[in-house]
Amino acid sequence: MAQAAQAPSGTRDFLADELRRRKAAFAAVSEVFERYGFDPLETPAFERLEVVTGKYGEEASQLLFKILRRGVHESTGKPDLALRYDHTVPLARVIGTHGSKLPKPFKRFVIGPVWRADRPQEGRFREFTQCDIDTVGSTSPLADAEVVLALAEGLEVLGVDRFRFLVNSREALRGLLEVYEIAADKGDGVLATLDKLDKIGGAAVAKELVDERGLELGVAEKLSSDLATDDPSLIRSKLAASERGQAGLAQIDKLLELTSDLGDRITFAPRMVRGLDYYTGAIYEVEAEGYPGAIAAGGRYDGLVASLGGPDMPACGGSIGIERILAMQDSEDTSVRGLDVALTVLGGEAELMRLGSELRSRGLRVGTYLGSSRKLGKQLQWANTQHAKVSVIFGPDEQEAGEVTIRNMVSGDQTRVPVSQAAEQIQGAVEG
Amino acid sequence: MAQAAQAPSGTRDFLADELRRRKAAFAAVSEVFERYGFDPLETPAFERLEVVTGKYGEEASQLLFKILRRGVHESTGKPDLALRYDHTVPLARVIGTHGSKLPKPFKRFVIGPVWRADRPQEGRFREFTQCDIDTVGSTSPLADAEVVLALAEGLEVLGVDRFRFLVNSREALRGLLEVYEIAADKGDGVLATLDKLDKIGGAAVAKELVDERGLELGVAEKLSSDLATDDPSLIRSKLAASERGQAGLAQIDKLLELTSDLGDRITFAPRMVRGLDYYTGAIYEVEAEGYPGAIAAGGRYDGLVASLGGPDMPACGGSIGIERILAMQDSEDTSVRGLDVALTVLGGEAELMRLGSELRSRGLRVGTYLGSSRKLGKQLQWANTQHAKVSVIFGPDEQEAGEVTIRNMVSGDQTRVPVSQAAEQIQGAVEG
Repeated sequence: MAQAAQAPSGTRDFLADELRRRKAAFAAVSEVFERYGFDPLETPAFERLEVVTGKYGEEASQLLFKILRRGVHESTGKPDLALRYDHTVPLARVIGTHGSKLPKPFKRFVIGPVWRADRPQEGRFREFTQCDIDTVGSTSPLADAEVVLALAEGLEVLGVDRFRFLVNSREALRGLLEVYEIAADKGDGVLATLDKLDKIGGAAVAKELVDERGLELGVAEKLSSDLATDDPSLIRSKLAASERGQAGLAQIDKLLELTSDLGDRITFAPRMVRGLDYYTGAIYEVEAEGYPGAIAAGGRYDGLVASLGGPDMPACGGSIGIERILAMQDSEDTSVRGLDVALTVLGGEAELMRLGSELRSRGLRVGTYLGSSRKLGKQLQWANTQHAKVSVIFGPDEQEAGEVTIRNMVSGDQTRVPVSQAAEQIQGAVEG
Repeated sequence: MAQAAQAPSGTRDFLADELRRRKAAFAAVSEVFERYGFDPLETPAFERLEVVTGKYGEEASQLLFKILRRGVHESTGKPDLALRYDHTVPLARVIGTHGSKLPKPFKRFVIGPVWRADRPQEGRFREFTQCDIDTVGSTSPLADAEVVLALAEGLEVLGVDRFRFLVNSREALRGLLEVYEIAADKGDGVLATLDKLDKIGGAAVAKELVDERGLELGVAEKLSSDLATDDPSLIRSKLAASERGQAGLAQIDKLLELTSDLGDRITFAPRMVRGLDYYTGAIYEVEAEGYPGAIAAGGRYDGLVASLGGPDMPACGGSIGIERILAMQDSEDTSVRGLDVALTVLGGEAELMRLGSELRSRGLRVGTYLGSSRKLGKQLQWANTQHAKVSVIFGPDEQEAGEVTIRNMVSGDQTRVPVSQAAEQIQGAVEG
């Protein structure tokens, strides 16, 4: 081999320690979602191209990994499948495919890879895991509240404690635009600009509202500065002047009421404007101390499933930025899973394999020295690299006496015991 | 939506109950492999095309799912990546990529999907899970024995008890050909024909050995009938006449000695000829009562990693046909995971959400009624479809009295308790 081949650009090989951490995190979050009555769902890695075509907008569809047709069709150079870009289009497809077999409402979670041909950079991958929960088929605010509480508990089991849900509502934001007498057709553009308040500040937002969104300067400055205060009582009083604004406030207040268990970890945040225009009701983002940006988000999007090719059903859901959270924790976490018992090999192999089986049946993790050296020192070195707690020595002396030597790999202490008692003694040494 | 879109041909959506069964099976087998000291490994869903090119032979490479180049290169119609076809080529690539960071020997397991564009048919999928363990970097027969014992225990935790490892050795088979004075260059072809003994019988095998492999009739008939007896002592005596045959027998006997814990679940089976010519040492297949064909297999293949583009390292490994096993069990298994507690909703939502949180913190699986009906009967119907063990009723009477009604969904019995004792009483009702 001239040069070692690498994993494809933007993808990762997960070796044991990191992979165990990831799997443990996924399992913990899955267990939370299960307790909230969400069911797991797994869809194929790819979908038919026509299922995804036109669902993601121009820019995103450039990022699809498309699969070439096969066999005699390969020479056409045309694709007929595409790797999963998110979990939402497959969800809409599944509801169309399996509709009658699914519970109503359909509450599902998924923690699995998606693929996007983004330019790889620090912390951005082409294969990465998304963690979503959604409830399809209910307009009840209880559905929104369940999603919020499940996300909150998911964050907790991931070790993220100091977080805050910032709640708003598309209806409230629309109402606010009405109060400022901004034409409905300018709404999406204005909200997209307001979404930049945190990034570029009030003055730049006001300027963009004038230059690009066509607002009058006075209106732009007032709207921008009112929202920048992030003062709920100010905005509440403004919203009271609009029916739409009142409806939006009611959505927000209902969600706050139903999630009051979270205390001050959930709050109305007027300046929290999510850019995605498919939201129709309550929306939220989660910020957490020590983590940049939003580490979770969600909301209600009643028209989304239909717009993605599924039936017309109300829906709400959210997701946890689990890759980002794991990336922050990886730098701290150096846990390794070593062997409980390392079996050195100086003869008596069949006896050793039997002892190994007995130890494994007691739940211990047991490895056998598989190298060619017959030197105990070298074999104990191997046991060290395996982070073994205990090594077992079964040399000629021990074999003759029908005993084994148990070596504590931390203290170096050794004890000899009869073979018949070995498994129990070794277990004691590991667990002691 | 005109017509419901389906999952791509040959792929499956896994809904909750089946998915839970699969994940539980994968987790159980993973835990076995961990106890044998194997480490998990996860590689990307796709590899660079040059990594897989030329590795699988002509026929198999027709079955690759190739990914089209992206962006401005899409119009070339050329691929640059391919979905994982198996876990072995990625393993060889990983050893090249991460060599110095990997333990020596490198013992890894993987239970994950691979993709093959086979013609879909009953029980054959284009996306399916392979379950492999391999030890790379050891020539020790203890490595082979560990793999065999780990596979055996893996089968056990999958509920396959009555299995038998049929052991042979490529060296023994080569030795046998020497004894029958068959030219070395005919060896692979002759073995490929002998591999069909079970399928087409001794007479047809003898005919093919003459017609297609160029053996003399007498030799062909003798070889075929001797092997068809599957009589170890007959073949042992034949092999004694060849050095190579003796070396092969020694490999077999060593493996049998080191796995003697399996008793008569492992045996020398002279007629077990695996067709794949990359095996270099002991080989085995596992047959099990109630399962067609081989449900696990493996062996030693010292040249394989190098031939797949990795460094030149000895290796042995095996795999469990986990999809086949799960398919046989699916028809029997009808387990569903229902709710522990169904919360009906007749007002008092905030109180109910708090109770839900408390129940979840006790580890219970709790769902809330998310429909629009205010009728208790309809809500209890929903609780039934959720297979709820217990329903909670918090109607106007209960709200006024500060109590909840706990309904056992099997017996229909109801009891009323104060809200303050509700969580504990409900937990008792679920677990009772």
